[in-house]
Amino acid sequence: MKLRRSARLVDMTRVLLDQPHELISLSYFSERYQSAKSSISEDLGIIKSSFEHEGIGTLKTVAGAAGGVLYIPLVNQQEASTVISDLKETVANSERLLPGGYLFMTDILGDSRLMKKIGRLYASIFADRKIDVVMTVATKGIPFAYSIASFLNVPVVIVRRDTRVTEGSTVSINYVSGSQKRIQTMVLSRRSLKTGSNVLIVDDFMKAGGTISGMVSLLNEFQAKVAGIGVLIEAQDKEAKLINDYVSLVKVDEVDETSKQISVTDGNYKEFLTSGESVKHEGDTN
Amino acid sequence: MKLRRSARLVDMTRVLLDQPHELISLSYFSERYQSAKSSISEDLGIIKSSFEHEGIGTLKTVAGAAGGVLYIPLVNQQEASTVISDLKETVANSERLLPGGYLFMTDILGDSRLMKKIGRLYASIFADRKIDVVMTVATKGIPFAYSIASFLNVPVVIVRRDTRVTEGSTVSINYVSGSQKRIQTMVLSRRSLKTGSNVLIVDDFMKAGGTISGMVSLLNEFQAKVAGIGVLIEAQDKEAKLINDYVSLVKVDEVDETSKQISVTDGNYKEFLTSGESVKHEGDTN
Repeated sequence: MKLRRSARLVDMTRVLLDQPHELISLSYFSERYQSAKSSISEDLGIIKSSFEHEGIGTLKTVAGAAGGVLYIPLVNQQEASTVISDLKETVANSERLLPGGYLFMTDILGDSRLMKKIGRLYASIFADRKIDVVMTVATKGIPFAYSIASFLNVPVVIVRRDTRVTEGSTVSINYVSGSQKRIQTMVLSRRSLKTGSNVLIVDDFMKAGGTISGMVSLLNEFQAKVAGIGVLIEAQDKEAKLINDYVSLVKVDEVDETSKQISVTDGNYKEFLTSGESVKHEGDTN
Repeated sequence: MKLRRSARLVDMTRVLLDQPHELISLSYFSERYQSAKSSISEDLGIIKSSFEHEGIGTLKTVAGAAGGVLYIPLVNQQEASTVISDLKETVANSERLLPGGYLFMTDILGDSRLMKKIGRLYASIFADRKIDVVMTVATKGIPFAYSIASFLNVPVVIVRRDTRVTEGSTVSINYVSGSQKRIQTMVLSRRSLKTGSNVLIVDDFMKAGGTISGMVSLLNEFQAKVAGIGVLIEAQDKEAKLINDYVSLVKVDEVDETSKQISVTDGNYKEFLTSGESVKHEGDTN
């Protein structure tokens, strides 16, 4: 169909947003709208300006025969600060406090609107790394992991604590939980992860880092590589962390059961926010 | 900022797609772009035509002081057939066959691109029902449930098989699994679900329907209502189903371990596809 520019812009915006990090050829658009590539390029210019102006990401153009355009979701400093301060306020709500100083987090992790914002933020932080798959451990953090995966447009892989017949053959490892020094097991189905994959490991909560270092060991069994580590919330722990190179959004510094005070500060995410310029793509010429 | 129509269209499309089923006032757009409401209405007309033409949904306009516009994700027959025939082909792959006639489904459920399409399809099927929350049981089906929830723009609630200290006080029920006649337990944290909620129950797999009827019983404990039931895959079972009123996408009719044949047909979803006209919204005047 031949479309007017206005209709083309609406549809192109929708197609690009729907497939982040995926190269779409100019010919695809040109055939879809029966328009000259020069018009398509102008349209892409308008969309790119709008995305950058609103701070929601950018379009990368890849030149050459195998070239095209891809949408990279990015979050700017200002938007990141808004998301994080909302998150801090939510986490610091004293009603979350459970006996033993634990925090109730299930509502936060099930909030699809919030997870969308946080998934976009993490996809922005890891936009310039090569990531084939996002991995997490069951159960609570799965929506968090899935949201990041959907903005990076890669699959999500779920490590379990138990074996199920529907997982087929599995690889299991024992690891020592960092804070409680208990031996635990984690299991991943053999078919879930290809050898050599670049894996972004994420979890909703990290104390000493035992679970995450367990996932790192599991990756070794699959000859897979750690492409990055991201946690939603890190907690202060007396023990030294087992993991150093990670990104966290917020940090629970102290939980006082008597006064019902939860003190929450920024995680280290600011050091990792990506600017549009640093994002590379295979076959990139500039 | 004052924007030209082209830039306005790109940004409005993005804002609408980002917040499905959420009423956005015309004043919001009018202030955001410093444009007259008449221009905003024209823009919305262009976006609505494009969405409907591409079969990705519609815009509903709600008149009056508390009015505005909302984006309803919809999938047309043609798009639905494409998604379902891809899914049937994927499920019928003989490499999924595990000892005992079980099927390996983990890769399908972790495929964020596919889950996006399926989430949109289910959001389309249930577009005209009042849904406050999507509920599923851990673990594999969580990305499926989350994707539906994100297109309906509601939270997701996860029922577990075990109790965790971080869930706070919980409600637990025993139920009999339909096909294996075993007594099992499911647990939901007390805070996860408000009394009177309208709940869409979903699961990745249904045989006799024991797990789903367990979730229905659990809803009774919370005085919550079943707004709908959706499964990704239903399987043939000798026993009568415990659940009647459900939507399924595909149906595994037979698994032959000797010949490695998996026969997969369409589920009953076609009876439930929503057309744009039937979608109502509170405060609707037409």
